[in-house]
Amino acid sequence: MLQVIKAGCQVVITHGNGPQVGNLLIQQEAGVSQVPALEMDICGAMTQGQIGYLLQQALLNGLRSHNLNFNIVTIVTQVMVNKDDPDFRNPTKPVGPFYNRETAERYKSERMYQIKQVVPNGERPFRRVVPSPDPIRMLEGKAIKKLVDAGMVVIASGGGGIPVTLNDSGENEGIEGVIDKDLAGEKLAEAVGADIFMILTDVNRVKLGFGTAQEKDLDRMNVTQAKRYLKEGHFLSGSMAPKVLACIRFIEYGEYGGDEAIITSLDHAWLAIQGREGTHIVA
Amino acid sequence: MLQVIKAGCQVVITHGNGPQVGNLLIQQEAGVSQVPALEMDICGAMTQGQIGYLLQQALLNGLRSHNLNFNIVTIVTQVMVNKDDPDFRNPTKPVGPFYNRETAERYKSERMYQIKQVVPNGERPFRRVVPSPDPIRMLEGKAIKKLVDAGMVVIASGGGGIPVTLNDSGENEGIEGVIDKDLAGEKLAEAVGADIFMILTDVNRVKLGFGTAQEKDLDRMNVTQAKRYLKEGHFLSGSMAPKVLACIRFIEYGEYGGDEAIITSLDHAWLAIQGREGTHIVA
Repeated sequence: MLQVIKAGCQVVITHGNGPQVGNLLIQQEAGVSQVPALEMDICGAMTQGQIGYLLQQALLNGLRSHNLNFNIVTIVTQVMVNKDDPDFRNPTKPVGPFYNRETAERYKSERMYQIKQVVPNGERPFRRVVPSPDPIRMLEGKAIKKLVDAGMVVIASGGGGIPVTLNDSGENEGIEGVIDKDLAGEKLAEAVGADIFMILTDVNRVKLGFGTAQEKDLDRMNVTQAKRYLKEGHFLSGSMAPKVLACIRFIEYGEYGGDEAIITSLDHAWLAIQGREGTHIVA
Repeated sequence: MLQVIKAGCQVVITHGNGPQVGNLLIQQEAGVSQVPALEMDICGAMTQGQIGYLLQQALLNGLRSHNLNFNIVTIVTQVMVNKDDPDFRNPTKPVGPFYNRETAERYKSERMYQIKQVVPNGERPFRRVVPSPDPIRMLEGKAIKKLVDAGMVVIASGGGGIPVTLNDSGENEGIEGVIDKDLAGEKLAEAVGADIFMILTDVNRVKLGFGTAQEKDLDRMNVTQAKRYLKEGHFLSGSMAPKVLACIRFIEYGEYGGDEAIITSLDHAWLAIQGREGTHIVA
């Protein structure tokens, strides 16, 4: 990332929050006899502060060691979702601690949690599940763009953003749910009018036939191919599938769309921008 | 606050985080067998996300109900402090849960906490104390000013900001401490070049001889009077004293200083700006 910024690219960064919000939810429950647990939208906002602060400090120190001085700013980011999103009727995203049957039943009635059994057996096979609605737009998009245009590095939409709906009274209202971070990241790329949308993950390239004998790295695919592969089930749902979907959306957004989307590993970000690594998705 | 924004004032808002960070520290301790507790600078960053999000949502809904549309943005804010600040040698700011003697002694040796007895007796009279160093400047000042200049309402420096020092390796490093929110708020006012610095608290006016038979409301004081009253001990330390000090600093900063500082209650913000309420501190 340092090299990307050093090379003169304007950068907006987003990030997940799975481990952090997981830990925070555990702590909220552990302290519940002394302090009421906070709703998930608030926990999400908290992890944006937490991770944003740590990222911006590490990045500032890294850039400074190369004699580069940048303003690096974290924006608390809300993402509008549709209250009629089908995911609200059938939530599937597991969050927070694992429960035994007794606790699971109690939270179902006391807190109206939706509970699912997420592992076949064991003492605590149950978890809370929440909706993962599709992101519509960043509420802070204009502010983020303003800062990027001023040459600052912006960290935004952490953990997929804080999901917010427009309620029946016409007010914005946070909801208990988790927006996919890659799909939210794509909306962020739209908000700033990015040329390149890059997803940094654990693998250097997207694979066709993942886990089969025919497994094959992809250097490049156009949107038509990407859509076909996605439909054919080459990519794991909740893992590579939303990443490829986010890239497709980026290439197709607005009148002209983005130039290029890239999926690669964190270590290869700079090589990938130069076209020497990663999977490139183009029109 | 709605009226102030409605009247066309550009507004930057800051806030404390006492109850929220207190609760978070309790939850961190309650979950410590499952999840490691986070450092105080990180907890501070988390409460900035938490409170900023809730404030901006409430403000947006309030303004919208008056048919006013504003971009409202929360900036995660770090505040530089001096690592040689005298407060590091003699920390006095109590934070987090109350402890019994046993736990207090354990945290002293295990976590290197500085512990003080904060109430004369009872089962749990001990608390951790941390330094409260003087704020030097907002690291995100330029970003905040850019957004205010663009007509946005900015929430920043929550809880006095995240205290950061420059360590011996020349890197920024968060510290476990709490910056006074009023003194940090004054630095925020400097960063945006504010005309008016307003502290909203529980009382409508600053009092001379607080709690005595000679108690008297102050409508107005100049900096010379304010300094004398402060020196004479009219204002409670950790309460009204830092507020008055922050106002003095605001009037005196830079070459020309601020126009006017106001201390009043939240309900009287708008009346105070019109000069009809509150205590006004001027050159």
